[in-house]
Amino acid sequence: MHLRPATQDDEEAIWSILGPTIRSGETYALPRGMDEASALAYWMGPAHETFVADDHGQIVGTYCLRPNQLGGGAHVANCGYVTDTAARGRGIARRMCEHSIAHARSRGYRAIQFNFVVSTNEGAIRLWQSMGFEIVGRLPLAFLHPTLGYVDALVMFRTLTPA
Amino acid sequence: MHLRPATQDDEEAIWSILGPTIRSGETYALPRGMDEASALAYWMGPAHETFVADDHGQIVGTYCLRPNQLGGGAHVANCGYVTDTAARGRGIARRMCEHSIAHARSRGYRAIQFNFVVSTNEGAIRLWQSMGFEIVGRLPLAFLHPTLGYVDALVMFRTLTPA
Repeated sequence: MHLRPATQDDEEAIWSILGPTIRSGETYALPRGMDEASALAYWMGPAHETFVADDHGQIVGTYCLRPNQLGGGAHVANCGYVTDTAARGRGIARRMCEHSIAHARSRGYRAIQFNFVVSTNEGAIRLWQSMGFEIVGRLPLAFLHPTLGYVDALVMFRTLTPA
Repeated sequence: MHLRPATQDDEEAIWSILGPTIRSGETYALPRGMDEASALAYWMGPAHETFVADDHGQIVGTYCLRPNQLGGGAHVANCGYVTDTAARGRGIARRMCEHSIAHARSRGYRAIQFNFVVSTNEGAIRLWQSMGFEIVGRLPLAFLHPTLGYVDALVMFRTLTPA
């Protein structure tokens, strides 16, 4: 399995991964009914660098990276990662996160920030913590979970040492 | 002085307020060289509700309000406020913030979040705190200030009681 930049040819595979995550509404603050074109326009937009986890031709995950703010905030990257439901438990999210840290550093970013980690997404939070991300903020009841109701969201942050 | 929705006729006045703030690069994470059309497209974009502080026909401040996230995060508003440099010290920012709290509540929002308050903007931080906003996160060295170098940015949050 290797990480490579996404191309237009990957769009169908990327949507097959993003779609169920968006539809579940449990981890991303995106409209559950978001259509494929809007989701791909967002995920592969011009401000984003988008990658796929390619396992011998099968796309098992995707992530995107962009500046989290403009101007005086453009040295901090923001990333989003989604693993194919059928491929969970194989360390793909960790591989994508490792890749994003190295890539962000190579691009000159000084940190990566996650703006909105749903507090019930405990596996993800533990994973990001194990990769050096710290919880730097807690947003009270900022996420409406489809079954759990209003839950907190977390802001997580990792400073990057220079390349 | 009263707050009212902005119209296209206000664009020149709004830019006369936004422009110096953007050019200074001290408080907003926007490109210092951002041109008028881009700034107005951002400030008055379709996702935003934009207001002006109208002092007998003179525009002395402007603010905008939008959902801070989509989907499960759309019940939290985000606001940005800018006061005309020449009109500072007259309580205009406070009036705009009060208006935004009432307006957000009337729209059914359950909270207002500021994602990126530059930590050196101490007057603003004190003002937001006096209006019930709490610092819920600190982003280490996330803002490059034009004269002070890398400084922290804060995440501030205020829960709204129902209307």
